[in-house]
Amino acid sequence: MEEKNKDQHPIKPGSTEFTHLFPPSGSSSDNEIITTSTSVEKQTSFVSFPRVDYVIVFKFPTKGKEKRETLQSKAQQQLDILINKLSRVGLNYQIQRDKRTQGTLFVFITCPNIVLKKELKRERIRDFLLGIRANEYNKEDEDEKKDLFDTNIDLLTDAERLRIVYEILTESEQEGGANISTEVDPFVDSLFPLHNDEFNKKWIHTWSKKSFINDEDLTQIRNHFGEKIAFYFAFLQNYLLWLSGPAIIGSCITLFGFKSLSIWFSLIMLIWSVVYIEMWKRKEQTLALKWNVRHCSKHEKQRLEFKGDRMVMDEITGEQVPFISTWKILSRRAMSLPGVALGAFFLSIIVGCVFVLQLFLHEYYTGPFRQILHYTPTIGYVLFIPTMTNIYSSWVKILNNWEMHKTESSWEYFYTQKIFIANFLVAYLSLFFIGWIYIPFGDHVLPYLTELHISHSHTKVDFNRLRGQLIYFIVTGQIIGFATEMLLPYVMNRLLPKVKKVAHEKKKNDPSSSSSEEEEEEKDKNLQSRNTTKFLKKVYRQVDLPEYNIYTDYVEMVIQFGYVSMFSTVWPLTGLCCIINNWIELRGDAIKICKYTRRPIPYRSEGVGPWIGNMETLTWLSSITMASFAYLFHPSTNIHSPYTPIFTILAILLSEHLYVFIRLIVRSSLNALPNWSDIMIRKGELRMKKVWLQRLLGRNNEEFISSSSSSTTTTTTSMNHSTSFYDVSQVISDAFKQE
Amino acid sequence: MEEKNKDQHPIKPGSTEFTHLFPPSGSSSDNEIITTSTSVEKQTSFVSFPRVDYVIVFKFPTKGKEKRETLQSKAQQQLDILINKLSRVGLNYQIQRDKRTQGTLFVFITCPNIVLKKELKRERIRDFLLGIRANEYNKEDEDEKKDLFDTNIDLLTDAERLRIVYEILTESEQEGGANISTEVDPFVDSLFPLHNDEFNKKWIHTWSKKSFINDEDLTQIRNHFGEKIAFYFAFLQNYLLWLSGPAIIGSCITLFGFKSLSIWFSLIMLIWSVVYIEMWKRKEQTLALKWNVRHCSKHEKQRLEFKGDRMVMDEITGEQVPFISTWKILSRRAMSLPGVALGAFFLSIIVGCVFVLQLFLHEYYTGPFRQILHYTPTIGYVLFIPTMTNIYSSWVKILNNWEMHKTESSWEYFYTQKIFIANFLVAYLSLFFIGWIYIPFGDHVLPYLTELHISHSHTKVDFNRLRGQLIYFIVTGQIIGFATEMLLPYVMNRLLPKVKKVAHEKKKNDPSSSSSEEEEEEKDKNLQSRNTTKFLKKVYRQVDLPEYNIYTDYVEMVIQFGYVSMFSTVWPLTGLCCIINNWIELRGDAIKICKYTRRPIPYRSEGVGPWIGNMETLTWLSSITMASFAYLFHPSTNIHSPYTPIFTILAILLSEHLYVFIRLIVRSSLNALPNWSDIMIRKGELRMKKVWLQRLLGRNNEEFISSSSSSTTTTTTSMNHSTSFYDVSQVISDAFKQE
Repeated sequence: MEEKNKDQHPIKPGSTEFTHLFPPSGSSSDNEIITTSTSVEKQTSFVSFPRVDYVIVFKFPTKGKEKRETLQSKAQQQLDILINKLSRVGLNYQIQRDKRTQGTLFVFITCPNIVLKKELKRERIRDFLLGIRANEYNKEDEDEKKDLFDTNIDLLTDAERLRIVYEILTESEQEGGANISTEVDPFVDSLFPLHNDEFNKKWIHTWSKKSFINDEDLTQIRNHFGEKIAFYFAFLQNYLLWLSGPAIIGSCITLFGFKSLSIWFSLIMLIWSVVYIEMWKRKEQTLALKWNVRHCSKHEKQRLEFKGDRMVMDEITGEQVPFISTWKILSRRAMSLPGVALGAFFLSIIVGCVFVLQLFLHEYYTGPFRQILHYTPTIGYVLFIPTMTNIYSSWVKILNNWEMHKTESSWEYFYTQKIFIANFLVAYLSLFFIGWIYIPFGDHVLPYLTELHISHSHTKVDFNRLRGQLIYFIVTGQIIGFATEMLLPYVMNRLLPKVKKVAHEKKKNDPSSSSSEEEEEEKDKNLQSRNTTKFLKKVYRQVDLPEYNIYTDYVEMVIQFGYVSMFSTVWPLTGLCCIINNWIELRGDAIKICKYTRRPIPYRSEGVGPWIGNMETLTWLSSITMASFAYLFHPSTNIHSPYTPIFTILAILLSEHLYVFIRLIVRSSLNALPNWSDIMIRKGELRMKKVWLQRLLGRNNEEFISSSSSSTTTTTTSMNHSTSFYDVSQVISDAFKQE
Repeated sequence: MEEKNKDQHPIKPGSTEFTHLFPPSGSSSDNEIITTSTSVEKQTSFVSFPRVDYVIVFKFPTKGKEKRETLQSKAQQQLDILINKLSRVGLNYQIQRDKRTQGTLFVFITCPNIVLKKELKRERIRDFLLGIRANEYNKEDEDEKKDLFDTNIDLLTDAERLRIVYEILTESEQEGGANISTEVDPFVDSLFPLHNDEFNKKWIHTWSKKSFINDEDLTQIRNHFGEKIAFYFAFLQNYLLWLSGPAIIGSCITLFGFKSLSIWFSLIMLIWSVVYIEMWKRKEQTLALKWNVRHCSKHEKQRLEFKGDRMVMDEITGEQVPFISTWKILSRRAMSLPGVALGAFFLSIIVGCVFVLQLFLHEYYTGPFRQILHYTPTIGYVLFIPTMTNIYSSWVKILNNWEMHKTESSWEYFYTQKIFIANFLVAYLSLFFIGWIYIPFGDHVLPYLTELHISHSHTKVDFNRLRGQLIYFIVTGQIIGFATEMLLPYVMNRLLPKVKKVAHEKKKNDPSSSSSEEEEEEKDKNLQSRNTTKFLKKVYRQVDLPEYNIYTDYVEMVIQFGYVSMFSTVWPLTGLCCIINNWIELRGDAIKICKYTRRPIPYRSEGVGPWIGNMETLTWLSSITMASFAYLFHPSTNIHSPYTPIFTILAILLSEHLYVFIRLIVRSSLNALPNWSDIMIRKGELRMKKVWLQRLLGRNNEEFISSSSSSTTTTTTSMNHSTSFYDVSQVISDAFKQE
């Protein structure tokens, strides 16, 4: 009995077990932790377990074909491995059972300071070698040393601490990590840090108040959730501000009833897109420098899945790394293209079907159940297409893994691209279809319908159909998006517990488990374990949450950018709608991260990564769409003349060149402008090199280093009288002599 | 009398004057020089003046409105200034009179070792701070110090020595230079080093023998003439090799009588151009690294002409630099565009006229003097157009100066671009005209001619006209180019001396100057001054030569590349002709530099600079020309149908996108390939930082630096027994209990 409960009852402080958790080496520093611990619970009970950095969810099958013993032994073996790994790298841990479900354990991980310090130092040095934290060099030489390799963990931000612990957990063994990952360990279900409720409350509170998010707020997020998340919010905020341009112009056009699709508006939008993207790149650089993550992508984290054909010595670092011939990689990438194309093809067919259905129902159909059938397409968009997209995603994921990417970053890049294709199709395909096929050739559909004896009332096919679809996407789409993103999880959160409870109740009634239940009940009497259960409840809640997926949020924004840049000439209010949506989105995402997802692992990143490229692609496309629409739907154009397609293409040709030209001008003129981050970087490098030089050459050479303009003054003195050597007047007069 | 001759008679070694030339500080090292001197003449006479690094030609007016005294005093004053400058920076000098022409002096400059050493050290450190000589870090740490800041001038190459002396001469005063330049000093006519005849002989000898120039040969050139020249030859050689592709394919097509203009050939050529350019970029990087000039363009040499509005502190180095607002610069650049456009417009009109004349005479005219008139256009191309181009060049030079460029590099870049426009027009305009205007619409000219009663025999306008013009440009053009480049100067060299002599003879006869002449005659008796005169003759010869202009050579090659990439579908043998021409060109340029131009100042450069961009532009254009020709002149095309223009444009649209796509693929797949220079650079940086780190942290931290994989082994021992804390089997079985 006593044995059995060991994992349930808390470790009493002072008991051998408790002290045992802290190695003598680290014991002193651990006291620090308890004092400096910012974690929510500060009692001396179980929950005062210094601080829980990560929770590993350890799930193993309790039923199956095999006999229970085999299952059990398997699980034991795995848990043993896990524990060994943890203790090898010197992490403290405690195991708790998930009381609600069988075959699930929580391993709470804490990193003692000594281990943290060590890893931190290693990281700092690696960063330095990679040239990250460049602007640190701008400090005075004296501070510099302290600054660069300062391992005072009290100054660490939450995000930094968690990131370092994560490194310890996930790095491969030869890198000195525990090599724990869901790929390697079959029963490790997931690995995530716990939310800091205090911070979250404060965050949501402040943001719900202030209408404008400034860099300080972003830095706060960065300190708590890491750069990757911070960059998303920075991007969103920056984009929000830039949107005001199109919003204002667009509303003016609508108010004063200029005809939309004007060439001028198209041109302005084109320039806006180009300038915005270039400016964001700069902003990104600046932030990356401020946040000390410049070049951090250079630290290419080997994918644990990447094995390579053979091991070779890395030419740069001289370490052994798995190697695979470039040709093989390239060929694989090439070969996976058809696969992606296939997926995209099927997806577009489905999107097409839904769209045609919608078109038919909205435009032609007048038969029975009109009212009800009218909403079927929307359902299709909400339920059917997303599922298809998910299928596509998992398919391309397989392909992407097959491509054998060396590093996480490259894997992520190619995966993002593939995902983007799907979203691109879903978002724009139908609009392209309407604009370029349905409106020009739509009228030919009529006869067939009559033949098929389908009762229909045909409204003339015209430009408004396109506008209607666009509005449908922007307004309805965004509302639906918001609903699925925010309301759904909210409802789920409200419901799930109830459901759970009901299930619980049932269990209570069936006698088999009652005994253990009662034990718990009575145990809940004493304070400690009430805290325990309180803490566990918190864990339960967070375990049930899904992981935060940053892709979807980025995709949403970039797709929206597409609507603005490509179609806002069709409906000038696009910008305005988006600005409103994003203002809410910004808060919504904050809430989402805090309440409806697990706390994300604080990865580092240099910026928004591949999304820039995608936005540039969209801008290029916008030059095509806007030109073609501006021509096609111009009052003076007879859309049904045989020449129309050709002239449309001419318009496209023209505007594409215009786009390239504009981009050229914008870039070159921006490069001419001084760039803060460049200056800081070069300054830092210069100082660093000077320091290095001083140490290399010794102090006596400082004259050279301090300023390269220390002219050759010494020789001057020895030479300056040599003027008298030539009697100048004589020389000159001689030169005249000849005459 | 004795006074007068001081500047003519040599300084006798051992005489006070001679010793005087060398400051006591440097005297020891100077003996070194004499021994290590590689200069041609090694006698103890005047010409054994250790070695003449540079010659300043000092020209001043001897006749004019002002009285002779004023002129004389002016000249004196200027010479005084010059001499002061020289002696301030500690350069030795000697003045000789140009005996042939009055009012001309030669100032022979020699840099004593002490000064050289000092400047060299400064340069080395500056280079290091700019990250030049990156691959030097790859040496072992011990050598590194010696290596990076090695100021042993015996190891200096000719080019390096001359460059450093040049720096001393031209750098501004606050940079510690003499600030001598033709802009600043009115009477300083030119400044150039003397040829090393031995080297030149060897060079031409070897190259005339071997058919293939390898990297060693290039490195030799680099060591003697500096990187800028070396890069030109590297480019030429590399281009020559790549040309073999089009040459072979082209000849095959001609031999086996495939019809030219085939789409396949066009496609192959497009891919070839793209790949070639990308590969050259790599080659360039590699060479830049090998030659230690990577990033050397970062050392932005302030233009002496650049004054700026006010002085500000440079944010990076903290030095005072002239500043001008970016907007002003941008606006000026923008404003100078119309000026360039105007120039280009007039030039194209002239080119157009010459071309139309040619067209008329070749195609239609059958009147009197047919034979003679037939050659007038060629004369136009040889004499008239070049002069016009020169006028244009000087016009854009004015504009370029007005643009206020901060650095030499940027000035050069924009100037090159402007020059390129002119050459582009001259080279291709008529071909475009034939291809896109004359052939499609040419037949409409006929009636007008008949109206004007001009006797003409009209051959049907067809595709062959274009081919004819192309062949005319490539064959005739290149022959003429060769003639003007090589034969003309050769002839001049042969003639000029004779002319001079004749003039000389005349002088002899007129009594006034006879006296001084005779003196010289009798002086020539003794050996020393015979050497003197020998040396002076050498100087005279070189002073008469023009400066080497690298632009023209680059332009020639890039324009030729344009013919190959844009038009080789029109005449498949283009590649072959060019390969032959270039093989000769390569040798011809060598001879030109040695014999027909002054020795160029050995500037550094990272590559061919702006020409890459121009070649890329040409490749883009080639996608347009080849597509349009492939469509226009396809047998199946009826060139006179009204649809032709439109479909041509469609073809262009298509192939432009194809081009962009190809470039994308090529670039990305090349980036995937490992790149030697990248590896070397990153290796170097890593090593450098490690060294820095060792010095910063002290030896005790090496464990971290040497390998980042020194895992947290220390803690392992202290922790590894913590496994026993949990009885795993117990835990698992508990997890099962619930069932």
